[in-house]
Order: sequence, then structure tokens, then C-alpha cells
Amino acid sequence: MVQLIKQISKTIPKIGAVDLARGCRLFSEDIPLDGALTLQLFRSRKAHARILSLDVEKARKVNGVVGILTAKDIPGKNLFGLINKDQPLLAHEKVRFVGEAIALVAAADKEAAQKALEAIEVAYEDLPTLIDPEDSLKEGAPLIHAKGNLLSRRVIRKGNAAEALSGCDVVIKKTYRTPHVEHSYLEPDAGAGFVDQDGTLVIYASTQNPHYDLKEVSEILGLEEERIRIIQAATGGGFGSKLDLTVQGYIGLALYHFQRPVRLAFSREEAFLATPKRHPMNIEFETGASKDGKIQALRARIICDTGAYASYGLAVTARAAVHATGPYAIENLEVESLCVYTNNPIAGAMRGFGVPQVAFAHESQIDLLAQELGLDPMEIRRINALRPGSKTGTGQELAASVGMIKTLEAIEPYYRQAKAQWKTETIPEPLRRGIGIGSMWYGIGNTGVQNPSSARVEIDAQGKVTLFSGAADVGQGSSTVLAQITAEVLGIEPSEVSLVIADTKWTTNAGATSASRQTYISGNAVKEAAGKLADVLVTEAVDVLKTPKSLLVLEDGFVVDSRHSDKRVALSKLAKRAHDRGRPLSWQGYFDPETTPLDSASGQGIPYATYAFASHLALVTVDTSTGEVTVNRIVAAHDVGKAINPQNVEGQIQGGVGMGLGFALMEEFIPGKTVSMGDYHIPTSLDMPEIIPLIVEDQEPTGPYGAKGVGEPALIPTAPAILNAIADALGERIFRLPAHPERVRGAVRGRGKGHEC
Amino acid sequence: MVQLIKQISKTIPKIGAVDLARGCRLFSEDIPLDGALTLQLFRSRKAHARILSLDVEKARKVNGVVGILTAKDIPGKNLFGLINKDQPLLAHEKVRFVGEAIALVAAADKEAAQKALEAIEVAYEDLPTLIDPEDSLKEGAPLIHAKGNLLSRRVIRKGNAAEALSGCDVVIKKTYRTPHVEHSYLEPDAGAGFVDQDGTLVIYASTQNPHYDLKEVSEILGLEEERIRIIQAATGGGFGSKLDLTVQGYIGLALYHFQRPVRLAFSREEAFLATPKRHPMNIEFETGASKDGKIQALRARIICDTGAYASYGLAVTARAAVHATGPYAIENLEVESLCVYTNNPIAGAMRGFGVPQVAFAHESQIDLLAQELGLDPMEIRRINALRPGSKTGTGQELAASVGMIKTLEAIEPYYRQAKAQWKTETIPEPLRRGIGIGSMWYGIGNTGVQNPSSARVEIDAQGKVTLFSGAADVGQGSSTVLAQITAEVLGIEPSEVSLVIADTKWTTNAGATSASRQTYISGNAVKEAAGKLADVLVTEAVDVLKTPKSLLVLEDGFVVDSRHSDKRVALSKLAKRAHDRGRPLSWQGYFDPETTPLDSASGQGIPYATYAFASHLALVTVDTSTGEVTVNRIVAAHDVGKAINPQNVEGQIQGGVGMGLGFALMEEFIPGKTVSMGDYHIPTSLDMPEIIPLIVEDQEPTGPYGAKGVGEPALIPTAPAILNAIADALGERIFRLPAHPERVRGAVRGRGKGHEC
Repeated sequence: MVQLIKQISKTIPKIGAVDLARGCRLFSEDIPLDGALTLQLFRSRKAHARILSLDVEKARKVNGVVGILTAKDIPGKNLFGLINKDQPLLAHEKVRFVGEAIALVAAADKEAAQKALEAIEVAYEDLPTLIDPEDSLKEGAPLIHAKGNLLSRRVIRKGNAAEALSGCDVVIKKTYRTPHVEHSYLEPDAGAGFVDQDGTLVIYASTQNPHYDLKEVSEILGLEEERIRIIQAATGGGFGSKLDLTVQGYIGLALYHFQRPVRLAFSREEAFLATPKRHPMNIEFETGASKDGKIQALRARIICDTGAYASYGLAVTARAAVHATGPYAIENLEVESLCVYTNNPIAGAMRGFGVPQVAFAHESQIDLLAQELGLDPMEIRRINALRPGSKTGTGQELAASVGMIKTLEAIEPYYRQAKAQWKTETIPEPLRRGIGIGSMWYGIGNTGVQNPSSARVEIDAQGKVTLFSGAADVGQGSSTVLAQITAEVLGIEPSEVSLVIADTKWTTNAGATSASRQTYISGNAVKEAAGKLADVLVTEAVDVLKTPKSLLVLEDGFVVDSRHSDKRVALSKLAKRAHDRGRPLSWQGYFDPETTPLDSASGQGIPYATYAFASHLALVTVDTSTGEVTVNRIVAAHDVGKAINPQNVEGQIQGGVGMGLGFALMEEFIPGKTVSMGDYHIPTSLDMPEIIPLIVEDQEPTGPYGAKGVGEPALIPTAPAILNAIADALGERIFRLPAHPERVRGAVRGRGKGHEC
Repeated sequence: MVQLIKQISKTIPKIGAVDLARGCRLFSEDIPLDGALTLQLFRSRKAHARILSLDVEKARKVNGVVGILTAKDIPGKNLFGLINKDQPLLAHEKVRFVGEAIALVAAADKEAAQKALEAIEVAYEDLPTLIDPEDSLKEGAPLIHAKGNLLSRRVIRKGNAAEALSGCDVVIKKTYRTPHVEHSYLEPDAGAGFVDQDGTLVIYASTQNPHYDLKEVSEILGLEEERIRIIQAATGGGFGSKLDLTVQGYIGLALYHFQRPVRLAFSREEAFLATPKRHPMNIEFETGASKDGKIQALRARIICDTGAYASYGLAVTARAAVHATGPYAIENLEVESLCVYTNNPIAGAMRGFGVPQVAFAHESQIDLLAQELGLDPMEIRRINALRPGSKTGTGQELAASVGMIKTLEAIEPYYRQAKAQWKTETIPEPLRRGIGIGSMWYGIGNTGVQNPSSARVEIDAQGKVTLFSGAADVGQGSSTVLAQITAEVLGIEPSEVSLVIADTKWTTNAGATSASRQTYISGNAVKEAAGKLADVLVTEAVDVLKTPKSLLVLEDGFVVDSRHSDKRVALSKLAKRAHDRGRPLSWQGYFDPETTPLDSASGQGIPYATYAFASHLALVTVDTSTGEVTVNRIVAAHDVGKAINPQNVEGQIQGGVGMGLGFALMEEFIPGKTVSMGDYHIPTSLDMPEIIPLIVEDQEPTGPYGAKGVGEPALIPTAPAILNAIADALGERIFRLPAHPERVRGAVRGRGKGHEC
């Protein structure tokens, strides 16, 4: 077949965007369900306590209450979790964090449900509470889980870090701290459900992970998966938090017992209280370099507070360890990353999966080294950058699509100009200008574990093409990209691809919408499925057009003889013909990136099949009197392999920069104190800088049309760039996020005193 | 994945062979169907006549008769045919051959049915009858079909044959004739059926082509394919004849009307009368060579008598034209091949598909050229043989797997020895010994048309592997080969592969069991399907064994770390794990060989993706007094690419040699005269020679593990080798098959008189 690229590197409007803007998409709360019961959760107010008694009898008698379910009403396993199954759906015996669900109320309306919640009585015996992971690790600390407070430990060892450090010309040793961060998706967790005519429990949910949800609900209810159907409702953002089971298990449990339509939507306060956060980390870095600027060694210790339950903690910790080097080749490594239980809110996946935290550390360190060595920050990054042929900290040799230096080159003109002009312009006191660079690498997909996607593409006898994909689109645009890939392979328009997305009755498992994996992994699965279908149609066309396959091309809904464009046959005609001849017209695709598990002792292995790279340039103005930081410009260069839909990529970059800015300057969730958006500041439109997205395409040979991913990379370099720019402005560095005005003022005050904020 | 070949090139007993030998297989007549009606066909006794009236009313009243169906009872289209749809299921208006079905009787038992047949009255108006295709082509000949008596014409033109012939040192021009040949399968055509609970018409049949049957029955009945299910019953041989619709349409029609179980089995006489035969051909060859033995040109005209209906006539004619060169490179060609209607029995596919006929011609011609030029028959074949880089008559450049010369080399030691010893031994008059060589090539799959196969392989959560294939096994062993390929890919034993074969409810279309295509085409489809499944299981194992995919191997039901064989995980465990994670575990494969349609004017194109080659050596003893020919030995060398199951390949060769011997010496179906086995001689065990099968493996890069096919090639060179041996013994050549004693005696009598038999 002749290849003809028409739908790749092409901006088409994000599928569903117009409907979304016009209010036509059905979110979970919009799904019409006559007489649906309202569900609400009774939650713990204790961070760590034994449940001595639970009395729901008074609550049952509240007018309008249909039922109240507790742990003993769970027919299957009262235990779930993405990797480590350690979390009960409804707490019994004890509670481990404030907000943990204990009982589920089903009532005719919200008022009745609310009254029932108030009527539930629980008696606790307080247990010692752990809020600092260092305390959790201490000898004799109270145990949050019977198996101990250390959830996981990941070590990466290569060369001899201690020896190399002792031989370095410069060694920088610093500790960095990052806070709990709330995802702040627009739509708090919600879902609804009903029992179908054939007894199937149908659950709509705001989710990133429908096929995982199915499995968990099946185990919780002790029902076969065939008897449960999860459909992703329109989802107002996820950013990692909606990978976890939130409402799905409760809806399933209520359907199981009441066999009536139900609805459950968390309030913003509940979403703040009870859903996973970004892991707070304490990060000690000791980085050494030789005079020539080459980083020789890194010793790092990372402690991640995963809160009361594991969620994705193990994976976040592993990813943080692997990414601790940053996008740099370092020969001598000793990284230890620990994931620790506390009685804080659960921390899980959040855009970046541990990398935003360590990037803050490695990017601060590299600037400090540059400063000590008298090197330009751009130069020291170039010296150390991973390039084709480099070996990573886990011993993986990078063959292709290593665009790190290209991202530096992309921002370089802006950097040079800002240094030469913008930085030198006279501005009034108390304002100061600073320029900073932040770089990152990001492994696409899960860390050294299996991580497949599958998809199905079919054409019916009338020529209608349908893509069935389990990949949840949470706003990032995966459906658009997958439709473009399907259209590209079949030579049709993306608008001609009917989509069945994230409905476990019809779609096969595409894995989670996480780890920036859907374009790379599901894209490949879709490409394979569409390719098999195309092959069947083209072989049909060989017969019709009397043209060898090698000369045929799929174009504009036809198979065309590439030599005579009037010699063509419509796909619809081929589909009918193939159908009548009994050819298979529904094809699966499957892709699993080639990785290897990391060795438990050395951490050596191939954790990811490919990596994205990015460099951001931040221009900031600091008001030294108020501590306010204004970000003037972010130039964001991203090696995405290939931008299937350039506008979608730019949109991701813009959103990522906003989130990174919040992480840098304002977002800090304080357990027990932060309650809702009133206490928690995220950037508004007025906080947003000028953003110049630069797409770098160092094509990935194993990617669909060369694509990798951009969802999480978009956010990661922003905070490091901003923090480096603040340091540049002040001559004083901040080691703890966010750099809110108080901390900036502290840095201003501490200037020259070696005080670390 | 590490490749480890365990199940290929390995003889395992043919699947089902033991059951067959023990009488445990259910043939159509064995399928238990309580109260099944007996079906019988009322057939024409006229070769060409208009039907003036048809009266079945008396027959209806016969005791035990349930119904009688005629053309007007057909709810859909009363027309079918493999390529050209020209044959009515039940004749109306007119009949075109003796034995054509006119009415279908359904009765409680055979006796009642027989009485009903006798009570049917039909009045005919005789039409002129055509029995010689040359007559059919004459100006003003009566028309058998409205569109004319010429069914198809295939021309192959290359270079300038006329000019080249005029420049040749030797030109041989001869005419060859081959007869109607009966397939003589052990089991005459039969089937049975019932209506399932959900209204599906379930039809068991002795068939080579279940998915084609489905389509035809669907169109005849005007029912959706979903409402019909064709299951291949155990099938007692087919050899091409059971590619056509035989009993299936009648069973479907009876089920449609009576909604009761039915059974239809042709008597041996009916199978002789009414099912397709091998095309008789008149073949004029004019072959010219230069002194060095190089064949410079061929002019050929082939007339094929396809009888009353087309069946596979068009394809047989095309294949005969393409193969007219034999396995030799000839620069100048002018081949015309005509397929002509007569009122003889239908001719269709029979093992070899037109090539046995033309091979008789080209192998006689090459020996005549050798004789004229004083060259050894072995030598002249070697000089002209196709080899890698050769261009065929259709302009196709042969890249790889062109084992022609290797097959000559394989038989050469036997040839030299026979010439030096056996031939020179003194034997008593009137016996004479002769040695002959016959070579052939055979394009695998259909000629320049689409020719796909699909298959499905799945594993369940308990680890049970099932292959679903639509490929009918008619005794040739395709199920065995496909199970071996599945087992090879998955690293299990073939006995661990459950088979669902040729059941349109479960299997996808694998295309017909014809054209020696199932190993090559379905083998590839199965390999692809199993490969996708293997990939899913191995990626699962990466996770379990913490070993990179590239180091894993599928072996003995485990995925094993190729470095540490104790590091392994059972497929059943992986299947369970994958199932629990929602991985797709049922995979389709598809393969269509890359061919191009032949240009209608020049016949240039790529008719087949690959070719099999073979050379047979025949040692015969002729009794010149009786004309009896005893075949003493056949040495049969076959380039099969790769023998998946060597014993199966040898079995095919042995069976093919038997059939070729019948074609050479005794089989001749004479329309109007041949009624049953009493009139038609096929070889018995006492006629069989010593057979030395030699497997040559010139691997085909696009074949599954290098395999091509052997089903038809097995038969093709035998008759030419025997006829050349007879010529060698007598010094006189026979130009018409079969070389029965009378013809041999004729040749003896004509010796030295230039008389051609």
C-alpha cells in the first residue's frame, strides 16, 4: 500500500468540544434516571481511630431513607486499590484518615440523606496519629496497617556514588520539600447507575479507568464482570485522581442491594477531603560535578507521604526514583525512594506521577552547580543532556527519539534575547526580573510493568467505520487523536469515525488514562486494528481494480490506484463486497511497550520504552516588598515525537503551564486545614503568563506515526523554571514549594544570610 | 521473544485419523436425526431440452411423501455457481445435461421417495445437443446459455512467438487430449439438516467450502446468513468436486419448507452423473527450441469442455493457460485458452485445476525436443528450468523458493542408476522397460484474484487454547497442520489445541479447501492469530518473570526465561492473569497472498504469490502384446517450501501418485456411457508402484515457517512421467490419455509408421 499522510500533524477541533461548550454533554449528574435515590457517605472525622460501635438504626428511621449500608453489607471483598489492595470500601474495625467512608446512605432526596448522616452514631477509640512520614518510619511507631508503615522502597544504584562524590570539584547537597496538591478538577467525583432489564448493573462514572473500575466493582460485589457495565460519563477533568475507585463501588453496592436507580456526587468539600492528592515529598539531593560541568554523581533520598492508603503510591515512588537524575546522563547513582503510610489524606496519581517533585530538585541542583562552576544554566544542561546512545540511571541505552537537546535549542533564542534585553531593562524598585530554565524527561507508560492497550475497529456492510476504545477521554483529547489515527489508516475523515469509548460492554481494555500513555500505547493498538481492517479492504480492492496492492492507496473514502486516480472504489462498496464474501471486518489491535521490570536491588532495567523531553524558559518579575511573583512569559519546548494534533498538543502545554504555575507559586493543600477552593488557590486567568508553546518532533520509531505523549510533561518543567527564575531575580533560592509571597519575602529577608526557605 | 522450533518439520499422527480408522467419525449419513425425511432428486434424462410441463401432483399423493419442491418453491435466487452464477438449483424452462435436478422429493423413507420419483411426469421438447466444444464454438451453433457458448477466454502473450518459432532450430507441434475424469471420492455427496430452537437452519454437509455454501444457501433461500449455519461433517474426500454446492441447497430448501430434519445422500450413480468432473481438454502445442536446447517459443491453444454449467471452468482455463509453459522460462509466448459450454456433465475443479492436463502436453513436448536435439531429458529440463530471478510467462519475476532444479537434482541419482542398470537389464519379450521424467510447477492459491483466509485463536481463563478455522479438512490434513502451527507459536503440544473447524457459526471464512492453499494461506492466518495471542501472554509474563520480552520463550506450556529455564510461568497462569486484567484473549488473523489480476489482453501480472515445484521419475514395464503398463517405481521430489508435517506430505505424495497413475493409464469418464465404478477403473493397491517420496525444502519467505503446499502438485507430474516412460519403452508416443491397453497396443502397432494415438 502507498502511504499518504493526511490526518496526522493536523489540527482538527477536539471531538466533543463544541458539545461541551454548548452544554450538551451528559455528566454523571445530568444522566436522566427517574426516581434515582440520592447516595451520600458517612465519613470519619478521626484521622486514626478504632471503631468501637456503629449505630445506623436511628438513621434508618429518618423519613425518606431507603437504606443504610455498612461494611457488613458488602457481598464480596471489602478491599480495593490500584496496585496494593489495602483500602476498604467502607471502613470497619478502624479508620485511617479524616474523611474515610464508613456508611453509605440511600435516600429519596438530599435532605433526607443529610438528616440520616447526622443521625448515624459512631464511637471511636482514638489511636496515635502520624502526619509526618519520618515519624511513621521510626522504630516503635504506631502501625497504620498491620504490614507496617513502609509501603514500598525503590533503589537505583549504578557506579559508585560515594566515591565519585568525593572526587568531585563541586558538590551541592540540599533538601527540597513539596506539599500535598489537590487536582482541582472542575467536576467533583460523581456517578449514577441503574439495573438493566437483564439484571446488569450499569454504572456511569466520572472516571479515567473504566475497565479497572469494572474489575474492582466485580470483586467488591462478588459478581461476575459480565453482570456489571461501567460507562464513562462526560468527565470534567481527572489529572490522576479519577484513576482510583471513587463513587463506582458505592453505586455498585447500592444497585446490588436496592435494585433502583441511584446517584452519588461528591461535594467539592468531599473531593478535597477524601480523594487522592499529589504526594508530598522530602527530597535530599547530593549532586557532584567536575570542573568541566559534567555531573559525576547523585545521591538522593526521597520520602513520599502516601497517606492512609496506597493508591498509586508504589508507582509514584518508583517513578520519582527513576527520574531523579533528570534528563541527564549520570554515571554514579545512589537513589533511594521510600513510600510511607501516614494518617494524612491518601496521595495517589497526579499529573506527573512523582516527577514534578523530583524535577524541582534536580533543576534547582543543576542551577546551583552552574552557579558554583561559573557556567551558564543553558550550557550545563547541554553538557549533561541525555542524547542518542546515552545510558540512563537504570542502565537503559537510549536509541532514538531523545530530543532533550532539541528542546534546549528551541528555547535558546528566547533565552539569549531575554538575557540580553529583557533582563537588562531598568525597572522600578522593588521589582526584580529573573530568568530560569527548567528541563525534564518523562517515561511514557507505567514503570517497568506491563501496560497494554487494546482496541477494535470495524466497518459495517454500509461502510460505517466504528472505533471501540476503552481509553477514557477526560478532556485531554485521546478520542480525537485515536479517531485521527483510525482515519489516517483508513483514508477517511476523523468525522467519519463513529466512536464507542470507555463502555465496558463494548470496548476492550485500553488501560488507564494515565502516565501520558494513551497516544503512544492506545494509538498503536488502534493503528494496528485499523491497519488489519485496511488490509482486508485493500485486498478486496485488488480484485476490483485489478491493481497490485503495492500501488493502492486509501484516500478520501476510496481505495485508489496511485497511478490513475480515477481508478478507484469506495470503501463502502468494498465493505459490502467483503461482508458478502464473509471476510472479517472487525479487528482488534494490541500494544504493550517493551519494558522490563527493574531489578529490586539495583533498579537496573528498562522501565519505559520511550521518553518525552521538555525545556521551559520562565521570565518572572518579583515584587520584593510583597513577595508577589508575576510570571511574564513561559516558553515551553516539548519533544512529543510527533504531534498528531498540534492544537491539542499546544492546549496540553498551556494547561500544563497553568498547573505548573500553581504548583510553583500557590497550591498547597494542608491536611486538616484546607477545606475547599476558598482555602486553596489555583491560578486564574489573571495569573496566566504569555505562553509560547514550541513543538519539537524527534520521532519515536515505535510510536504511532512517531508520537510519544505530552499530557504530564506539559506541567513538569514549569515550576523548576519559575523557581530558577525567582532565584535569578533574588540571588536567593527557595527550597520548598509553593513559593508563595510569604516564602518569597523570607528569601528576600534571608538574602546573603544563607537562610533556606 | 526467542524463537524455538519444536512442532514444525515434525510428524504427528493426522488429527482425527485414529477416530476415522475406528469408525468414530460422523459422516453426514451417520448424524443422528430422529425422524429425518429422506430427500431425493428427480433428474433430467435429457442432455438438452425445453421443459414443456412438469407434473408432480401424482407423486405428491404417494404414501409417505411429505412434499415435492420445484423451481417455483425457491424463495430466493434459483441460481448459483462458484464464479459465474449460471446454474439453477432446480431446472425450470430447460435442462442442459443428463442428471440435472428438476424436483426435490421429501418423503418418510427411501422407498416412498423412490416411488414419488417414478410418479413425476415431465414433458420435454428436445433441443440440439452439443458434446464437442469445437462444435459449440461454431458459427450458428445452438446456444446452451443465452450469453453464448464461450464461457471464458484467457490469453497470455509475451515477446513474439510466431517470429521466434520461425527462427528455431527445432519446432514440435502436437495435439494432446485428456478425458473427463471422475473424482471417485470414497463418500458420495451427502448432507443432513435440522431447524434449531432459534429458527436457524443447521446444515451438515460433506464439503470443501462451508463459508461459500453459507452464502449460496442464503441467496437461494433469501435468508440472512445469520439464520443459516453450515457445519462440515466428516468428509470422505473431495478432490475439488465438493467445492461446488451439491446437497446443501436442497437441504436448505427442504428445511425452509418443511421445518423438519432431513437427509440427502447421492448414490454413487448420482455422484457420477451429476457432480463436476475434471475438464477434458484439447491442447495444441507448438514448441520451438534452439540447438543449445533452450526453448525459445511456445504457441498453445487449449480448449476446455466445461459442460453444461460453469462451476470453476473460468479458473481452470486461466490456470491451464498460465501453467502452459511448464516450470520453464520461455521468452516468447502466445497461449490462448478457451472454456466452452457443452451438454456434457459439468466440469469443475479437480486436483490440479487444469495443470495435470497441460503438464501432459508440456512434458511430452520437452521430451520430443530433447529427442530431436539429442539431449538427455534431465539436461533439457535443467537448461530451461525456472530459477530465482527467472521471469514467468506472465512477466512475474521469481524471487525466492524456486526449487525446480532442486527437485531434478533430487531424482537425478535414481534416474542415473535406472538408466545405467535397470534399463539395461535383459528382460523377456514382449516386455519393454522405459524411464520417464515429469516435472511441474503449481501456483499456490487462486489465479490473480483475492484469496484470503482468516482464523481465530483464543485461550480461556483456564488456559485452554482453541483454534477456530473455517478451513475444511477433507482428509488432506489441514487441521493437523494448523494445530501444529498454533502449537508452535504458543509453545504447546498440538494435542493441547482444541479445534473448532468449518462451522460457520463459530469459524471465520478461511476460503475454500482448494488450490493447495490451506497450508500457505490459512497457515499464515493462523500463525498471525496465534502470534497476537502469544504476544499478549508473553507481555503478561514480562511482568511475572521480570524478564525482558526479548529473552522470553514459549516452551512446553510455559513462558520461560531463556537464560534460566527454571524461571518460568505456565500459560494457564498467564491466561488467568491476563483474563483478570481484561486483556483480549481471542485473536483473529488474516492473510491474503499478494497477487495482481492478469491483464485481459496480455495475461501479464502476478497470478500467484508463490509456486510449488516437483519432478517425478517413472520406471515402467510395457507388455507389448497386451498393451498393459506396469509402473514399477515412482520417485517423487516435491519442493514444498517446508514440510510442516513430513508424514502428511509423504501421504499426499503417495495419494497423488495413485491418482496420477489412474489419470495416466486408466481413468476415462465417457458421458452417457460411464455409470458407476463398474465402468470406471481407478488404481487398486495392486496397481500401485513402489513410491519414493523426496521432500525438497526451498523455503518460501512469505509462507508459514517457509511452507507452500503439496495437495495438487503431488498428482501432476506422475502421468507425464509415466507417458514419457512408455514412449521411452516403445519408441512411440501416446498423445491421448489415458494410455489404456488398447491405446498402448495401437502405439505398438503404429511403431515406425508415424501413427499418433
